[in-house]
Parts: sequence; structure tokens; C-alpha cells
Amino acid sequence: MTLISEQQIADTKARYGIEQLERASIRQLVMMVSDLEALSGVDFVRMELGVPGLSPAPQARAAEHAVIDSPLLAQYPALNGNPSLRQALSQFFKSFMNVDVPADNCIPTAGAMQASLAAFWLVANLHPTRTKILFLDPGFPTQIQQVQSLGIAYERVDVFAQRPRRVADQIRPYLENGDIAGIVYSNPSNPVWNCLAPEELEEIAALCDAHETIALEDLAYFGMDFRVDYSHPNQPPYPPSMGHYTHRCIQMFSGSKLFNYAGQRTGAVIIPETLMAIESEQLKARFGYASLRNALLFGVIQPTTAGLCQSAQAGFEGALRAMLDGKWNPLIEARAYEQRAVKLKAALSAHGFELLYDADGDTPIADGFYFAFGHPAYPDAGLAQALIEFGVSATPLTDAGAHHKHGLRACVGLMTDDDLHRIVGRLAAFQEAHA
Amino acid sequence: MTLISEQQIADTKARYGIEQLERASIRQLVMMVSDLEALSGVDFVRMELGVPGLSPAPQARAAEHAVIDSPLLAQYPALNGNPSLRQALSQFFKSFMNVDVPADNCIPTAGAMQASLAAFWLVANLHPTRTKILFLDPGFPTQIQQVQSLGIAYERVDVFAQRPRRVADQIRPYLENGDIAGIVYSNPSNPVWNCLAPEELEEIAALCDAHETIALEDLAYFGMDFRVDYSHPNQPPYPPSMGHYTHRCIQMFSGSKLFNYAGQRTGAVIIPETLMAIESEQLKARFGYASLRNALLFGVIQPTTAGLCQSAQAGFEGALRAMLDGKWNPLIEARAYEQRAVKLKAALSAHGFELLYDADGDTPIADGFYFAFGHPAYPDAGLAQALIEFGVSATPLTDAGAHHKHGLRACVGLMTDDDLHRIVGRLAAFQEAHA
Repeated sequence: MTLISEQQIADTKARYGIEQLERASIRQLVMMVSDLEALSGVDFVRMELGVPGLSPAPQARAAEHAVIDSPLLAQYPALNGNPSLRQALSQFFKSFMNVDVPADNCIPTAGAMQASLAAFWLVANLHPTRTKILFLDPGFPTQIQQVQSLGIAYERVDVFAQRPRRVADQIRPYLENGDIAGIVYSNPSNPVWNCLAPEELEEIAALCDAHETIALEDLAYFGMDFRVDYSHPNQPPYPPSMGHYTHRCIQMFSGSKLFNYAGQRTGAVIIPETLMAIESEQLKARFGYASLRNALLFGVIQPTTAGLCQSAQAGFEGALRAMLDGKWNPLIEARAYEQRAVKLKAALSAHGFELLYDADGDTPIADGFYFAFGHPAYPDAGLAQALIEFGVSATPLTDAGAHHKHGLRACVGLMTDDDLHRIVGRLAAFQEAHA
Repeated sequence: MTLISEQQIADTKARYGIEQLERASIRQLVMMVSDLEALSGVDFVRMELGVPGLSPAPQARAAEHAVIDSPLLAQYPALNGNPSLRQALSQFFKSFMNVDVPADNCIPTAGAMQASLAAFWLVANLHPTRTKILFLDPGFPTQIQQVQSLGIAYERVDVFAQRPRRVADQIRPYLENGDIAGIVYSNPSNPVWNCLAPEELEEIAALCDAHETIALEDLAYFGMDFRVDYSHPNQPPYPPSMGHYTHRCIQMFSGSKLFNYAGQRTGAVIIPETLMAIESEQLKARFGYASLRNALLFGVIQPTTAGLCQSAQAGFEGALRAMLDGKWNPLIEARAYEQRAVKLKAALSAHGFELLYDADGDTPIADGFYFAFGHPAYPDAGLAQALIEFGVSATPLTDAGAHHKHGLRACVGLMTDDDLHRIVGRLAAFQEAHA
């Protein structure tokens, strides 16, 4: 028996001008499910929200309180952030990733969002002919929106669907065209939680060096590949990173998921000195500044936000230092996501669903924040809407550039034990209806 | 006798790659003066910083503290901001400007900076041929940087230098070309503190309506024309606004100066429903969304910052409501700027300097946050550097598109009584050296 009628769904879709859920943005889906909850009184099991469900560091809160009581509220932030925050970011990348980037090249941003905006904007305007961005999909649809809004051309290729996986072979033809300025990927990936392995990164790095392309490494889920414990500073193992193999790598970091700090909009763009020191005619023509550093600060950061919120900078630094000092270990706390994913995957598998993108080579992906799943009754589309009828919401992979377009992304960020209990009955009803 | 040697200035300019101070950005000048202070031990009288020097509302601080202790830190802000903040913004514009804009069209931004970025980005992509921005100068150079970074074409015209002033006549030829999408001005203006009067705004509004051009009204210094007391809600007089004469007006508001909140990066873009409801093929092509509302939220706000910092939103709302409730009157407190400007103008005039852009028609401009001045010994350039030798810093008007290129902008935001005392001796030394 369904909990939501087809009519209720049709009415709600109409309100947002949505023809097919596979075409809706995540934010539209979120609004639609909230409306359906209000309309029907049904408490959905919501897996569509990519929202952290744990707590920020006490040190982060304390640092914010101190700024709120200080004269800093009235003072413009420096465009390149507080020196002590830059220092903490540099130490963090050294201690937790074994990557050396000078503090002055670790620039705070409004989430990884502003970091990737800056990276796309700059990298696509460095060179007269290398002007496109190549997305290694499935990926984060808002990054596609970023290049679209900026008028930057792009290509996308699903590198995780092919078995066996041959990422370098897949992307080589694009690079050989000579017009790719930057390659974007996320480790682990949103939405499918696949990870590029060290040997894959090394091959891609060699391609980047050969074709003078810059790797754009999205670390919004820094260290959250729970197959390995990356939570201890200054000792291996370190998370794989393109930064271990080439200086042609800009890293985009976020406080949102790792530090449970999504509300305060914190992140950073991490740029090796060899890139930061680039001077180019194209940058000069676009931004009025030939050097990448000046184009970043005066051509992107200042005209978008004029720097990052003072108290948020302090909170972000508080979280970084708490982790560096070994006083707070969010990667251990985030194992809660691992446990939820194990249970949720088991429930789905037990009720006729299939897991998608579930391995890196021969190794199963980590149980973590996201994973992808499908159902054989919906080989093309329709699964998201079918699940909504049973009070369960998840995000279609279509926008993410997935080869497996019929799949959905599940996020366990906000799932409670109660959700994990309730979903079993709903999946059973779904299974019965599809028997 | 000078306090700073020509050699010290030359060395410091070289460090920042500055050939001529008239070509340096404000941020570069700020860094240079800080370096000179460190190098020489001279405590400058700094008039180059556009920084508020008063205190935020206690209610703003309290609201931020509450959020810092709440689970909101971990939760993404809504792209269109908190409903209660939108409501407060709408009430504020009704109560303090007598302009009616629905709450859902008052979208919080990271300062007026993100508001003007959004306005330029959207307005220049509404129509196939109206794609340029026209700046009514002298203006804020970072807005020029915004359109340059976005690749938007622009024109600029100094509308305040001509005596008698004929703003509508000056801009009509530009509009008749048919390619102007938006007209930008600030009331009062940064850097010269001129204000467009109601009758001027009415004429410009008629031109906007005739040529389907959108006025972009920068209210970063909302109500700070101290010739009139605009500080009481729900009663005239109200500050002049294009919004009184046409719906073709987007307003850009800031918490930085009025609320002494520059550090937290708060502002808003205020859009009448007639504009918010626009649908256009050009928007669809650029942003993937035909409606201006969706293009704003999903094509600009999400890809730049993904919404405004949760605690900053609360603080901003706290300040708005404190002022709406009559519990806090920052416009009365800001009269401190008026008193400082009176003293500083007197000191400059007494030592051979001339005030520039010092009247709106026959009426002297308000004594306020900024004003412009020059010196007859420097009819073209060189005044900024000459003053630096005497330990006084101010910003050249060159970048601001001023006809009076030899002038400088003085800001009294951070000036203390001690500064106002010390500057007299320095100006006397300058006068003696130029006798």
C-alpha cells in the first residue's frame, strides 16, 4: 500500500514545474519532499539531503563566540583570510595528507563551493586554447552549474561505470584534444563514493603534466574513505591525492562535512606555489591581473564575497586546530555514517534493490556518507517517484552524469536509528507492490 | 620636513609592483601604507580605509551567539535565506524607505558585494542586445572589477563633475544606443558622497522605463546622507530611491557600514516582483533557468556561496529588528562621522587644499563617511604620494572614474580625535613645503 497518492505527487511536481524527477535539482527535490510531508502528514525517510548529522568541535564554537564579542565584527576580513587560519590549513594538509603548500597559498573560501568557483574561473582563463573543464563523473551537479553560469565549456565522462576501470585510458583522448584546462574529481566522490586509487592518480598526474592540464581535487569529504583510518596526524597512511604526484593540482577543501560546519560556509582553495606564481596574458585580459594570485584575490574573491566571515574563519580554524592537536577526531565520529550505510545497504539488498558503483576495482567501496542504488523494475527512470509513493526519498543520479542513469543516491547524513527501522517496512511494501 | 623618504616610498611601491599610486587598487594602497608604517615607525593618519568605526547592535551579537550554540552550524542555509530574515528585510525597506518588496524577493547575500555581482550577472544576461552596464561615476572600483571578471561590457560617465548637473541629459545618449541593461549608482556615493535627488531619480526612472533598462541602486550607505534625519521608522522623510518611481530597480543593501558589520559579510539584493517574475531565453541559455528567481538562486547564489552563513544571517536580522523596533539607532550613532568630516574638511581647507564634488546642485553635500579633495599644486596626479611623505594616506579617485582625476577620497570611518589633532601639524608641514 502506498503512503502518497499519485495525485499528491503530480500536484507537488506541478507546483515546482517539474516534469520528471530525474530532471529536478536536488534542492527542488528537497522542497518537493518537504511539501509532500506537510500535505500528507507522512514522515518521510529522507535520503536525498546531503547534510551532515554530527556535531561541530567545541573549539570551533568557542572561537566563534570570541569573535562575536570582539571588534572584528566591524572589520573587513583580509581577502586572503586570517594569517593564523592560513597557517592552520597549511599544517592540516601537511599533517593529514602529507602535502606541502605554503600557508599564503591556502586561501579561505565560502565552502568548497567558492573554492571550485575560483578554480574553474581561473584555470579556464589561463591559456588561449586550453579553456575547457573535464568532469570525471558521476559528480556534483552544482559544479556543472558553476561552469555553465561562468560560460565555460566542459566535457564529462563517467569513469566509474566501466569494469574493469581504466580512467587514464578514458580521459586520454580528451586531453589529446589539447583544450582541457582542468580535470575535476572528488575523492571520495559525491554521489557514488568511489575513490581514485594512488596508482590511478599517478597515471592521471602524468597525463596532466604531459598536457599541461591542472587537476582540480575536490576534498569536500576529506579522509572519509572509511576503509582506512586517516584520522591520525603526522603518520601514514595518508589519503591518496594528486598532490603526491604533480604540482599541477589545486585542492578544494570544505569544513561542511568533515567538521559538521555546513551552516557557516567554510572551505579553502589550496594552490601550490608553482601555480600561484603563474602569470598569463589571458588572466590579465580577463581579470586585469596577470598573476594567478592577484587574479584570485582581486579578480575572484573580492568581487564575489570580499573575504570570508570573520567569526566563521575563527570557527574553521578552531576545528582545524582541534583536529591537529589531537583533541577532536571527527573522522572517528563520522564512523557513525559507516554503520548507518551498512544497515541501509543491507535493508535495500534484502528487498530487491541492487547496489551500483559498489567497488573500486576488486575492492568494495567504503560504507560512508553516500552510496548509489537501483532497482531492476526501473531500468531507465521512475525509481525516485516510485519510492516517494512509499515515503522514501533519494536523489536521481541523472544530473551527476552517471552512466547508470536509473540509479539513485542515498545519503545517510541525517538518518536516525528510527529511520533505519522504519524504512524496512516501507521497502517491504515496495517489494510487495513490485512482486 | 617629510616623515617618509622618497626612497622608502619607492622601495615599498616596487614591492607591490606599483608604478603610480593613481594606478594602485585601494587594497594595494592599504598594504603599502601598513608596510611604510612598519618600516618607518611613523603612525600614519589613515584616510584610505573605507572601514566603519562604530559598534554593532548588541541584539546582533546576541543573535549570533544563539546560533553558534545551536545545531544550525551543521545545516546548510537555505539559498534564499531564513524566512524571518527575508521578512525583516522587507519590513526594513518598507519602514525606512517606503518601498514595498515582498519578503521572498529580499535575498540575503555576502555583503552588497555578492548582491551587485548577482545583479550584474543577471541583468546583463536578460536580453539579447541589452548587455552592457552603465556606471554613474565616481563610483566603487570593485564593481568595475565585477563586470570585468564576468566579461560584461560597460560604459562609465562622471555625472557629478558637471556644473550645473544634468544627469539625465548625460546618460540619455547611452540609453538611446539600446545596449544598456543596467545603470549603477550609489546613494550616497562612494567615493564622493554626492546624492541623486528625487527629481533626478524620477528623470532617470523615466529613461529606464522608456529604454527597458534596470536601475541598480547601491545602498551600501543606506540613509547616511546626514543633511536629513532618516532614522525613524514608518514616517517621512524617507531617503530618495529609484524604487519610488519605477519597478525597474534592483536594490543592493549592506550590513557593513550601516550596522558596523563589515566582518560578517552581510547584505541583500532586493528585487521587485515584476523583475523577479521575468522569464527569458537568454537567462535560460546562460544559467539553465529561464526565470530570474531561479537563475538568481540556482545560477548565482548556489554556485558562488550556496547561501549565507547561518550565524551572520541571525546577526544581520538582529540589527534590522533592533532598528525597526526603535531599540537601536545606528544613523544617530553614525553622526560621529559627520562631526569628524566637518573637522577634517576644515583642517584641509585651512591648509591650502580644495574640496571636490562638494555640492549637489546648490546644496553642499552632507558631511559623512567619505568626501573628495585635491590640491592646486597637483592638478593631474601625485597628491597621494606627496601626502604619504607627510604621514597622511588617502585614495586616488582615478579608479573611481572621476573627471577630477587629481583628487583623493578621504574616509573618516576610523579617524580618532587624536588623528584629527595630529593631521593639523602634518598638513601645516605639507603647506610649508608647497608654499
